[in-house]
Formats: sequence, structure tokens, C-alpha cells
Amino acid sequence: MKAAKTNSGRFFEDYHVGQVIRHAVPRTVSGGERALYHALYPARGALYSSDTFAQGCGLKASPIDDLAAFHLVFGKTVPDVSINAVANLGYAQGRWLLPVYAGDTLRAESEVIGVKQNSNGKSGVVYVRTRGMNQRDEIVLDYVRWVMVRKGNLDAPAPEPVVPQLSEAVAVEDLVCPAGLDFSAYDFDLSGEPHRMADYDIGEKIDHVDGVTIEEAEHMIATRLWQNTAKVHFDATFREDGKRLIYGGHVISLARALSFNGLSNAQMIVALNGGAHANPCFAGDTITAWSEVLDKAPTGAPGVGAIRLRLVAVKQGADLFALKGEDGKYRPEVLLDLDYWALMPL
Amino acid sequence: MKAAKTNSGRFFEDYHVGQVIRHAVPRTVSGGERALYHALYPARGALYSSDTFAQGCGLKASPIDDLAAFHLVFGKTVPDVSINAVANLGYAQGRWLLPVYAGDTLRAESEVIGVKQNSNGKSGVVYVRTRGMNQRDEIVLDYVRWVMVRKGNLDAPAPEPVVPQLSEAVAVEDLVCPAGLDFSAYDFDLSGEPHRMADYDIGEKIDHVDGVTIEEAEHMIATRLWQNTAKVHFDATFREDGKRLIYGGHVISLARALSFNGLSNAQMIVALNGGAHANPCFAGDTITAWSEVLDKAPTGAPGVGAIRLRLVAVKQGADLFALKGEDGKYRPEVLLDLDYWALMPL
Amino acid sequence: MKAAKTNSGRFFEDYHVGQVIRHAVPRTVSGGERALYHALYPARGALYSSDTFAQGCGLKASPIDDLAAFHLVFGKTVPDVSINAVANLGYAQGRWLLPVYAGDTLRAESEVIGVKQNSNGKSGVVYVRTRGMNQRDEIVLDYVRWVMVRKGNLDAPAPEPVVPQLSEAVAVEDLVCPAGLDFSAYDFDLSGEPHRMADYDIGEKIDHVDGVTIEEAEHMIATRLWQNTAKVHFDATFREDGKRLIYGGHVISLARALSFNGLSNAQMIVALNGGAHANPCFAGDTITAWSEVLDKAPTGAPGVGAIRLRLVAVKQGADLFALKGEDGKYRPEVLLDLDYWALMPL
Repeated sequence: MKAAKTNSGRFFEDYHVGQVIRHAVPRTVSGGERALYHALYPARGALYSSDTFAQGCGLKASPIDDLAAFHLVFGKTVPDVSINAVANLGYAQGRWLLPVYAGDTLRAESEVIGVKQNSNGKSGVVYVRTRGMNQRDEIVLDYVRWVMVRKGNLDAPAPEPVVPQLSEAVAVEDLVCPAGLDFSAYDFDLSGEPHRMADYDIGEKIDHVDGVTIEEAEHMIATRLWQNTAKVHFDATFREDGKRLIYGGHVISLARALSFNGLSNAQMIVALNGGAHANPCFAGDTITAWSEVLDKAPTGAPGVGAIRLRLVAVKQGADLFALKGEDGKYRPEVLLDLDYWALMPL
Repeated sequence: MKAAKTNSGRFFEDYHVGQVIRHAVPRTVSGGERALYHALYPARGALYSSDTFAQGCGLKASPIDDLAAFHLVFGKTVPDVSINAVANLGYAQGRWLLPVYAGDTLRAESEVIGVKQNSNGKSGVVYVRTRGMNQRDEIVLDYVRWVMVRKGNLDAPAPEPVVPQLSEAVAVEDLVCPAGLDFSAYDFDLSGEPHRMADYDIGEKIDHVDGVTIEEAEHMIATRLWQNTAKVHFDATFREDGKRLIYGGHVISLARALSFNGLSNAQMIVALNGGAHANPCFAGDTITAWSEVLDKAPTGAPGVGAIRLRLVAVKQGADLFALKGEDGKYRPEVLLDLDYWALMPL
Repeated sequence: MKAAKTNSGRFFEDYHVGQVIRHAVPRTVSGGERALYHALYPARGALYSSDTFAQGCGLKASPIDDLAAFHLVFGKTVPDVSINAVANLGYAQGRWLLPVYAGDTLRAESEVIGVKQNSNGKSGVVYVRTRGMNQRDEIVLDYVRWVMVRKGNLDAPAPEPVVPQLSEAVAVEDLVCPAGLDFSAYDFDLSGEPHRMADYDIGEKIDHVDGVTIEEAEHMIATRLWQNTAKVHFDATFREDGKRLIYGGHVISLARALSFNGLSNAQMIVALNGGAHANPCFAGDTITAWSEVLDKAPTGAPGVGAIRLRLVAVKQGADLFALKGEDGKYRPEVLLDLDYWALMPL
């Protein structure tokens, strides 16, 4: 009778190009989710902390942090997309299209846009485009993600391979500034730093200096908040080594929050160009972060520029600006290599 | 001067049948309590997660989780009822009568409905009926609980024993569906599983598969959230073994949240028929849960059925569907045996 | 390039009397911050827990806890005032002037009111008056704090010493009761204890009995919630001993919350007369608290008295009412010695 009613998840052969999966469970956000985000991460972005600051930038109120919205949408996909995943391979073409405000209800759906069985016949790669929608069915964010999924039935025939064309980065002209956003009266005292986009050079690297040592309770509280149910994050009896693997999104949010020190004015995340969870992270690790300016561009919104950033999270023992070794592989202390666009005063 | 002003709690001889105790402290709930509930437990019930889903079921908004309301009411009773309790003996005849919404203020009062001194003369059993009320003095839930309490003065005479008649379960006709509740347009995609009440058989057992390892910080944060002040949960110097005993309600909420996997559509808890905290739980324990379908019945609300469930929480090392040994006693890995009614689409 | 963009903080020579520093980052509070405060501390004050109780006392709703408002303001000052501090020397003349309600946005600014270089030429003492303001630019609280700060440039000349005159305590006539506050219909059942101001004697000491063992996750979640970024609280690699120093404000809030047991009716904090963080606190410590009644006075508000309290937090191993040794120094188990005024029913 075991597992007759429980969700054992989809296997590789259960995915088909064109398939659309409506994910459970919709979620209404409030000041509670915001407060928890600020308690779990050293998040200090003024636009996400203060209604008055956000209103001074042309928004109706302070939105929920962009990464909180991302985690909420992502968490819903886990039981349908990645519960039997062997590896989380990548992200591409992610865009934030609308701010999420307290009172909004988010749901998510994913369309399968690619499948490719591995040569070993035991697994395959599944590509999905996931959309987060609000209570008015407006898309608030979407992104492509691909995962390696085990086959449940090794005898299932390999599907016709379909691999989507994915751009290396979201083009500047495809970035969406929230309606009304205006940085012309931006208050650099209240935001925390005087640096505007003109002060950053392409190629510049910034050591964010601060570090955070992670506790089991914290990453579990965060991961549950996003209703991400992947067993490996919560159950110390699941892995042979008795360790709980930390949700990659927890490291993303930690690193982004740490980047406030040096990038206080990189306010809104508008695109996720790509990302790799280079090495696993466990409780007890102390996380620090550094960023590299990859590109800069104006936007159509008054006073608003777009800055493309590489955000790298490393753990204790890493060299300054550690990334890859001579073999081209990530150094063992590197946890995250993320590529995103943010909006910053020009 | 020590303890002159502090509350040392009531002893057995301080309780009298008919006595009504108004408990401190009233509490206004908000999205903050909801968010914390979802961060502390892997709770995913759609009705408690999404305003739009709840509105699709005829409610005005998503209520606070039923067990959060229960813990809030229960927590208030601790300083008055169980601070000198030797054992928490049982629950009966619990009913949820009204949903609790963000903005509601809960208070609680208890009436002593039974007292019986133990033959050893050192303690006795106290039965109370506790009611949780909102800011309009409407009863939102009530339940009977009995505890064994130490005598403060061993010379106090034994009271006339009064033992209330308690039914084994709340009768179907006494269950209260919230006004307006209607499952006829229930969305089984968004709720997480396709199973309706007709898909469950009486006697069916469901292994909920997922597990959660408990941290000290988590159970203390949860227990404080309900303003439950029992020292044994917080003070590592209190017990000789240096362990903090985990509040039984924390295990109830964990097990109920884990039961989402297999019982996603057992949405609202409407009755608590009984419950036993079979063994103590400590940080480091990994909790899993299983359920047994005890009964099913229609209700008067459109599309709404009632399902009676046994919910069992066990810790690491338990056999599948572990409950009692040949001696009729709970197996040492069993933490909780709870009997409740929930509402589910027919 | 390291630290070119990051904030390395001000050094002693960067402070000048009359200088006004507008602190980042403004923060809008909601029920989320309230719920977290009640989850992180055993806070039970009825006025801060229940809208209906607060309305019964003449307020429009239940405010955010006074110490939460204090921590929010204090946290903003850390990057500007104390990031290079060697020691947090004292507080004085703190007053709460307006309640903070959900929806309010707090910001902070500090004026340097004193500087005095130490005789060693390597550091100096900086005195600031910090004001917390709401979205209407009304001052909600202000206080004086002084810290010892390292010099960055040892060759910088010593400034003319300016040491502000600080009163030993806020005078009764300078205490501000919130407009409308009225304790004449105060409900002593719901507040948790029957004791009114008349029941307390000057010189009376109260052992608050309960204890809480602190976890790393808890103090970090709390400290981040106030956007206090001091590295020493979060980064286990920062100190040689691998310990994370607990934010002194965490101990203040813990002790104040524990003091509910014996001082349930010491509702609103209206003044901070002084305070010393006598010894450092680390995860694993079990905190208990005791209070001493220092003074009592009527106020102009109906039924409202002011009680001046010493609040002492100690850790495991402390004697009852432990404070100072024969040498006049704080006993090693004493963590906090705080002097404040609270409002209590007459």
C-alpha cells in the first residue's frame, strides 16, 4: 500500500515536449514572508525594505524581494520537475516582469521545451520553461531550467531529442523595468552607498567582505518557506553521510544579500542569464561573496541603468576572487556562479 | 523574596469543578504568524496557503492554519493548567467552529470539568474544557484536555471525584463546516493531488514518505510563537540530561504537514477526537508520519466530505506503520497517535 | 581593488562634533516583524500582543514591541557608528516618544555630540545622539550611545575633547506617555498578573525564574531582522576562538521578555536610563533574568504609573540576584545591567 497515494514524481520518460504542468500550491504573500526574508538573509536593499523609499522610486510600495518571488515559484516546481533529478544543470533566460506585492497570490506552471536521453540510457535531460503568475494571471517571472532526471522504466524508448536554443544572456532590449520606475530622485544616503552605475567599470571585481556561517535551522526554515519539499534538504537520514544538502537558492539569496556591501544600489533583479551550483553547501560552511561587472546599459526608465553582474559565492578557505582552476573546473570552495542583470541609478 | 511576584502555577488542590479561568495573553494574528507556520512546518495545504484557492472554496480569504489556531489557544492555557503537570494525558471532543483570519484576536478560557485525586495522594487528574474566542467573543475552537497535576499541599483533602463522560470521537453530525464552504469547483491541480474522498478506503494506511530532522532553534521558535512558556522546552539546564523536551504540538504540526504527501486534500481540520504523545521527542530526531483512514462521511456542505484519520508520527528506526507492540504499548519510536476529522472533496 | 566599493566604516578621526549622519536603510514594519519578535523572544506583553487589549488601553492598535523599534533604529547605525568600534560603552537618555505601528517606516540619523581621544592615541570615544523617525518625520525614539572607536590613521591629530553631560536617568517629567493611553479599565486577567504599581516596593527584587538556552540560528535570525550587519555576530571564522558574539540587543530582548514572569504589567518602555553589556554572550548559554525596582512615579495619563527598573541578565551558574563582586566589577555570569522606565497600571 506504501506510496499508493503519495507523489513519487515524474521520471524522464514521463516528460514530453509541449507538455504543460500546472504546479501546486498557490501562495499568498504578506509582510510575513518579507520579514522572514530579512531575518534569514542579510538583505538590506532599500527598495525592498521601505515603502517610502520604493514610493520615491515610483513604485506603489516596497515589493517582495525578487529572489523571494523566484524561490516561491521555483519551490512549486520541485515535486513536478526535480524530485527525481540527479542534477540541477542550469538556468537561462530568466526575467522578472512584474513586482510582487504583499497580498499577491503566486502560482506556477512549466512547459517542457526539450528532452534528450543520455547515452547511458538510464537518465536524460529535461528542459522546462517555468512561469510564475499572480492572481490576475499576469506573468511575474519566467525562466528556463534544465535538470537531469532518472528514468523510472529503463525500457522506455528514447524520445526524439529536442534541445532548445538558449541565449547566453538576456538581451538588454528584453529587460523589463517595472512601470513607473524612476531613479531620478534616488536617495543615496538612505540606500547605503554613493556608487551609481557610472562608478562601476566593466571587468571590475568587488569583494563583498562580509561572511555568514550557515546553521541547519536557517536553511531549513528558508527552504520550507518556499514550500520546497526536496527531501535531501530536511532529512538527515537520507544521505549516507548524514548531511543535509542546502537548497541552492539559499546560497543564491545569501550571496546576493552579502553583495549589498559594494552593490547597495544594484536594486532590482530583472534577469537571470545563467547560473551554476558549482559545489554543494552544508551547514557549518561560512559563505562570502564577490561580484564582477560584466556589462552595463541604459534602460528606457528615467535615471535607471542595467548592470550585468557575475555573483560568486565561496566558502571558507577560498582565495580572493576564486572561481576556476587551471583545469577550467570550479575550485572546490566555489559554491555558486550566477549571472544576472540588475537595475541601478545611472 | 524569590517568586513572590512570579507565577508558580496552580496545584491539584487549586482546581475545582465549575471554576472558569480566563487565560492571558490575547493575541492578534497576521500574515506574520502564517508565514512563520509555513517556514517552521512543511505545510502546503492550498486552502491555508492561497487566498484565491480559499475564495474558490467559498471562504473570504485563506485562514490561519487550524493547528496554528489550536497552538495559540493551547499556549495560553499552559501557565494556568499545565505548568505543574506531570503528564499530558489526553485530548477529546475538540472542534474547530470558525476559521481564524489575519487580523483576528484570539483569547482563551478554560472551565474545570473534572478532578480526581490519584490513590498515591500526591497528584490528581484535572479535566478542562478550553475555548478559544475571537474579538467578537465567538468560539473558534474548543476541546477537552486532561492532565496529571502535582499537589502543592499534600495535606489538602481529596475532592469529590468528578470524571466527565467523554465520547471516543466527535460525531459526524457535530462537525461544523465553515459557512459558505463549497468544494464543487475544487482545483485538484493546484491542491497537489488528484485523490478525493471516494479514493480512500476505510482501513487504508498511507506512508507519507518524507522526513524532517528537528533542530533546537526550530522547535523553540515555534513554541514561543504560540507563547507557550513551559520551561522544559527552552532551558537546557532544567532536565538532568540537558535535553530540551519538544512541545507535543510541534510534533503534531510536523506530522500533519508531512501528511500532505498522500493527503493533500484533507484540507480543514474540524475535530480532534483524541491524541496521545506516546514518547518524548528531542532535537536531532528525524520525524516521519503515516496515516490510517478510520471513517468517512458526507457533510451538508456542497462537495464536502469528512474523513476521520489516525495520524502517527514516528522517529528514525521505526518499522513501516509502527504503532504498538505485542504488549499493547506504543513502540518506543512512536511519538504521536492522533485521531482527527478533516474536510475533503467528496 | 578589494574594498574599493565596500564600506569599511568610519574611524575615530572621521567623527566631528555637530556632524549628522543619515543612516541607511529605511524599513517598513508589518505583522511579520511582530510575529518574528514573538517567535524569537518569549514576549507576552498583552499590549504588544493584542489589538483588542491595546484598544482597551486607548491605543489605535497593538504597537510593535518597543525593543523591536529600538533594535531597528540601532541596527541602521551599526555601519556608520560601530563597525570599527572596540567597545560599546553605554547608553543614556533614551526615550520612546511615539508607538510604532505595522505599516510605519522607520529611518534613523545620528548626531555626533562628543569625541575624546584616548591617551594611548590609538582610539577614542565617540558620543552620538540617534533619532529614529517614522514616515511623517516624527521622532519615535532617541537615545545617546557612546562607543570606543579605533583610529584609522594614527597620525590624525586629537580633536578638542567634548564630553556631553549625561543625566543618570531620564527625569519623570520628561517621560512621554502615548497620546490616549489610559489604564483605568486595564484587564489584569488578560495581562497575565494581578500586580499593579502599588504592589511593587522600591528596592524589591524579582527573580524571573524562567530560562532560555540560546541557539546560533536564533540570535542570527534576530540580529539580521534588525539589519544589524556587524560581522562578529555572523561569521564563525572572524574570531580566533570560532565563536560568534551575540548582539547585545538580543540579550536585552530576551531578558525583558523573561521579565514578563513577575512584571507582566510593566507594559511600555518609555525610557532607557543606562545599560552595560557586562560580559559577552555565546550560543549555548542559558539566560535567566532578575529585576530590581529602582523608583516609581505617577504620570499624567489616567491610571498610568511609571516604574523604574533595573533588569539584569545572567547566565548559567549565577547566584540569585548576582550583580557585582566585592571588587565592584560585574560577576562573570552577568551579561546585562539595564536601567529603564516602563509604564504600569497604578
